[in-house]
Amino acid sequence: MDADNVVTLKTVQKAADTLSGHVIMTPVQTDETLDLLSGRRLYLKCENFQKSGSFKFRGAYNAVSRLVNSNGSTANRLELVAGSTGNFACGLAMAAELHGVTAHMVMPDNSPECKRQMALSHGASLTLCEPAAQEIARTVNQVRDATGAIFISGAERPDVIAGHGTMGLELLRQVPDMDAVVMPVGTGGMLTGVSVAIKSICPEIRVYGAEPEVSNCAAMSLEKGERYAFPRFPQSVADGLNGNIGKLPWTYMQSNVDDIFTVSEDEIKNAMRLVWERMQMVIEPSGAVGVAAVLSDSFKARAGGCKNVAVILSGGNVDIDILSKIL
Amino acid sequence: MDADNVVTLKTVQKAADTLSGHVIMTPVQTDETLDLLSGRRLYLKCENFQKSGSFKFRGAYNAVSRLVNSNGSTANRLELVAGSTGNFACGLAMAAELHGVTAHMVMPDNSPECKRQMALSHGASLTLCEPAAQEIARTVNQVRDATGAIFISGAERPDVIAGHGTMGLELLRQVPDMDAVVMPVGTGGMLTGVSVAIKSICPEIRVYGAEPEVSNCAAMSLEKGERYAFPRFPQSVADGLNGNIGKLPWTYMQSNVDDIFTVSEDEIKNAMRLVWERMQMVIEPSGAVGVAAVLSDSFKARAGGCKNVAVILSGGNVDIDILSKIL
Repeated sequence: MDADNVVTLKTVQKAADTLSGHVIMTPVQTDETLDLLSGRRLYLKCENFQKSGSFKFRGAYNAVSRLVNSNGSTANRLELVAGSTGNFACGLAMAAELHGVTAHMVMPDNSPECKRQMALSHGASLTLCEPAAQEIARTVNQVRDATGAIFISGAERPDVIAGHGTMGLELLRQVPDMDAVVMPVGTGGMLTGVSVAIKSICPEIRVYGAEPEVSNCAAMSLEKGERYAFPRFPQSVADGLNGNIGKLPWTYMQSNVDDIFTVSEDEIKNAMRLVWERMQMVIEPSGAVGVAAVLSDSFKARAGGCKNVAVILSGGNVDIDILSKIL
Repeated sequence: MDADNVVTLKTVQKAADTLSGHVIMTPVQTDETLDLLSGRRLYLKCENFQKSGSFKFRGAYNAVSRLVNSNGSTANRLELVAGSTGNFACGLAMAAELHGVTAHMVMPDNSPECKRQMALSHGASLTLCEPAAQEIARTVNQVRDATGAIFISGAERPDVIAGHGTMGLELLRQVPDMDAVVMPVGTGGMLTGVSVAIKSICPEIRVYGAEPEVSNCAAMSLEKGERYAFPRFPQSVADGLNGNIGKLPWTYMQSNVDDIFTVSEDEIKNAMRLVWERMQMVIEPSGAVGVAAVLSDSFKARAGGCKNVAVILSGGNVDIDILSKIL
């Protein structure tokens, strides 16, 4: 792997410098009911309070900032294009807007309305396509050819992943005696960035991924020993996790991740409801997957000894009518 | 007024000592969209994250703690009774449970299910009655006669009000250059406690109340120059504000409160939705009334010059099915 294509503690620390003052150092909240139910002390990292409503703003801001700085006086003519199930589009649109850069987003046509509206509200143009990896790639290429925009991969860019990794640095400061961290896995960018940050500093802290049973490409990849990708996106209620594991995240996952837990659609909905009722926070289904995992029987069986567990609530962008239906 | 029946800066400071380590010093959050819409810098004090889901825990804990301390070795045989539209019952039940004291709650039969369940979950007994001041008083008396419990008035006890006032002390530290604070008015306990704390230290900070148009007994009382009480509770969606102004709060309101703003039911629902969509927080309708006020045209007309405005989100206890219907 060449030096430009790696995520290291140093690149994450550099990203933290870039993001300082521009992202919210999101709070970590606790709740006694959740502690009781999980049998552990849980520390919930509230990325639902992050700018653009999810952690994706971190990586997006880092990537746009680097691009703008390396393009000097021509930066204001930059155009960017990205494909996203939703939150990366929101984060990138906002980061682009803040840097005065034009953004074009490609999203599946079944993505939540609030995510489309947020991308649009930050000045991005939006193209919808079928919810399949190939269709998104094809549409991104069309937009790129038509506009000359630079493609920003949410899954494959080391600067995006390093931006996400800054959550790991914050958790090391925010959570006393952290034994483990649990987070949702979609393309794997968060898992890669956070695991690099945490394992580099405290290799004994366990790093766990969580994903929907019906959209389990991380678990399947680890089981098969090679990266697995669904040709057509699965349809988990956790819409942000229906994409596939990226190639770059996959190279890190095998060594950095201690386990992957899968949860049912009902477990995801129950976790959303719990966080809502007990903690008065809105999280989206994808953001609830880590909570669902720590409450699951398999977590109790396979993560014994972890007393203080950080869980990343990855985002809070959910349509109200969908939420009503889900709950 | 005798010395035991007053709320002063000193009693609020004493309450802050009592509450230290037992209540959550709730965060103050900001949002650029709300700032744009209001034309000011808003600082939202998140009492929806307070123990028991609302600020009422503060006053309840202070009152129970004082009672327990003054009853010495017989404290464990104490029984308490209170009437409440909901949140004071939740707060008092939790405070009683933490002190090993028995609590009996009387609530109107149209109170939200989640509030009833929370009171029960903290070990309180619960009696429902018609939603009218007289019926609540009558039922409280029945329970008191049957159990020998001590009546804890959420509206009239200075120690409850002093406990609520601790939010004022926190806001003075949390909000830079605060020009005004806006909060919902139900029985007026929060308005009294917070206004005493803030006006004693910074008399130039404006203290504003906010209430539903359909449940406007504070505005009507100020207009008439005498305390007005609805015989049968109004039916605002802001269920926590359907009670009447207390006698003790009324004695403070005339001198301490700069203005009262009334908002429509639609304005309350829109404010809830905004906080949900933009800030990823669940607040109950009563908790949204202050936000609705600062976004209203009348606030823009009558509160000019207030640049930095604190708004208290008083609570987050709302039934999910009700929420779906509201939004």
